[in-house]
Amino acid sequence: MNNPVLVEVLRGAVVESRHRGAAAVLDADGTVMARWGDIDQPVFPRSAVKAIQALPLVESGAADAYGFGDREIALACASHSGEPEHVQLAAAMLDKAGLAVDDLECGAHWSFRQDVAVAQARAIDQPTAAHNNCSGKHAGFLCTCRHLDRDHRGYVALGHPAQDAVREAMEVVTGAVHSVDSCGTDGCSIPTYAVPLRSLALGFARLATGAGLGPERGRAARRIFSACMTEPFYVAGTGRADTRMMAAGKGRVFTKTGAEGVFCAAIPELGLGIALKCDDGADRASEVMVATVLALVLGEGDPLAQELRAMARPTITTRLGFDAGGLRPSEALSALPR
Amino acid sequence: MNNPVLVEVLRGAVVESRHRGAAAVLDADGTVMARWGDIDQPVFPRSAVKAIQALPLVESGAADAYGFGDREIALACASHSGEPEHVQLAAAMLDKAGLAVDDLECGAHWSFRQDVAVAQARAIDQPTAAHNNCSGKHAGFLCTCRHLDRDHRGYVALGHPAQDAVREAMEVVTGAVHSVDSCGTDGCSIPTYAVPLRSLALGFARLATGAGLGPERGRAARRIFSACMTEPFYVAGTGRADTRMMAAGKGRVFTKTGAEGVFCAAIPELGLGIALKCDDGADRASEVMVATVLALVLGEGDPLAQELRAMARPTITTRLGFDAGGLRPSEALSALPR
Repeated sequence: MNNPVLVEVLRGAVVESRHRGAAAVLDADGTVMARWGDIDQPVFPRSAVKAIQALPLVESGAADAYGFGDREIALACASHSGEPEHVQLAAAMLDKAGLAVDDLECGAHWSFRQDVAVAQARAIDQPTAAHNNCSGKHAGFLCTCRHLDRDHRGYVALGHPAQDAVREAMEVVTGAVHSVDSCGTDGCSIPTYAVPLRSLALGFARLATGAGLGPERGRAARRIFSACMTEPFYVAGTGRADTRMMAAGKGRVFTKTGAEGVFCAAIPELGLGIALKCDDGADRASEVMVATVLALVLGEGDPLAQELRAMARPTITTRLGFDAGGLRPSEALSALPR
Repeated sequence: MNNPVLVEVLRGAVVESRHRGAAAVLDADGTVMARWGDIDQPVFPRSAVKAIQALPLVESGAADAYGFGDREIALACASHSGEPEHVQLAAAMLDKAGLAVDDLECGAHWSFRQDVAVAQARAIDQPTAAHNNCSGKHAGFLCTCRHLDRDHRGYVALGHPAQDAVREAMEVVTGAVHSVDSCGTDGCSIPTYAVPLRSLALGFARLATGAGLGPERGRAARRIFSACMTEPFYVAGTGRADTRMMAAGKGRVFTKTGAEGVFCAAIPELGLGIALKCDDGADRASEVMVATVLALVLGEGDPLAQELRAMARPTITTRLGFDAGGLRPSEALSALPR
């Protein structure tokens, strides 16, 4: 595997670091509209597929039964920053189903965002599972179990009906086999399966269009996308890439980050899905990659593309706030490949 | 540039992410004992050369004049975690020279270590420049200015005598030209110059042996190395790679990390210097690289090599603490290249 350098990190006029990666843009028929690097190498999508993992919550009727609106559904698809609104909404979702934070099996951690972690440190003794960036997704799993009258204990384990339902949705949407051989454990304890970027991009094109999903799953996908694009704060948090891109997109783009440099995205109006991974797992680079690919696919004349291009050139400053360098897309990301 | 993959990140049985890099092992004559990738590409050494940047502090007589022992000299070479001992010692160094924390021009930041940042958030309103990971280095610059009766204001700027002295030391020790063309600004506001890993490894072999430095600079280098190896907590902090490696080494290895995936190291008993950079700037990978290269150079039978090999295989756990994967050196790092 020898993927191209897609992002450069500059200090002064010198390229200090380089990030390689692969990216796929597909339509819902499986046609590759653009590609960089090897899109057939299996990668763990991690949290970038939470919108697919949330399908059972909506399809089962659980979301309706508990009166979940856009915010709750967005949080079920979130890797949130653990800001008070996120934590309180996760607890409220559980409460509606007669469950509690102690039922979450995702483990606890301080926010990944330092400003939020500092505020948390002053407000609480220790983070709970509701502070876990995945607490909304796990609340969704638990609420689905409760609605279907399933024993929720052990819902994170391979072989539990909750994870069987997630795998079924993943296989149907992406068209990729999810085998035990390619299964790892995510940070929040649920199974994650390595699949090709090609399949992930196809899956997000299908979510965006409903093509090949059938009417019920198509409706659920539309509802999930709409919820995330309407409430992007609940998908990530203050200053985060997903929140900023979807807020700028005003319903035109869906994006979702995953750990280890993964992004999945879609442009519903074009019927396209996007999946990419930075080889080395760096978020800072995958964020530049996804903003750039979205801008390239939208095209030069689109004002949203201009906003995304600006997001794809974050500045690096000194501790006193002066410019020292920044990130930029490489030459390989300067245009759609022919 | 197409450096080899040197570190792999596993989740379950699948390689999830890959880190490329280059590494050089040289003796003080400039003979390359081992190399991986392109060691002639200029890289910013960042904080990995703080031991060289501290030479003027010792050579000028400032360290003696202010009664600095191993801890103060180690802190002058540190990228510390901002633990209370670090912060207090930086302030005490300044105090000895009649200076204050407000004289530091490095800027402030919360600790990079989340556990330390949480403790800081509960103890203080905002971090000061003494909490900056570079505060010991900057205290050293300031004390040198004061001892030489120089105006210290603006000591971080290109062209200030403090930075001229640092550049002179860097050029003599590494043998590399430090030109304005290859100059960037470090996070703590001082100039940093891109130079080849070959030159950096040579420089650390010279520091380790004194070869080519003359008696006074050789003595200063020996004192600096000895201080860091004797007080490794003051070079980094609790649980940090430099602290753990030098504590395990008991005076046999010197190591120093730098931002964006750089490491410089030395094995004085073998007269060898090491310099490496992870292409993408990841610390997690540069730590595996340096521990592995040190172990390879020390050789199989050495108990220290076994400890370093264990450090080069950190585990990745779920939020509940169960094993989910880990990092490992790649095939390319399995032996010294022929």
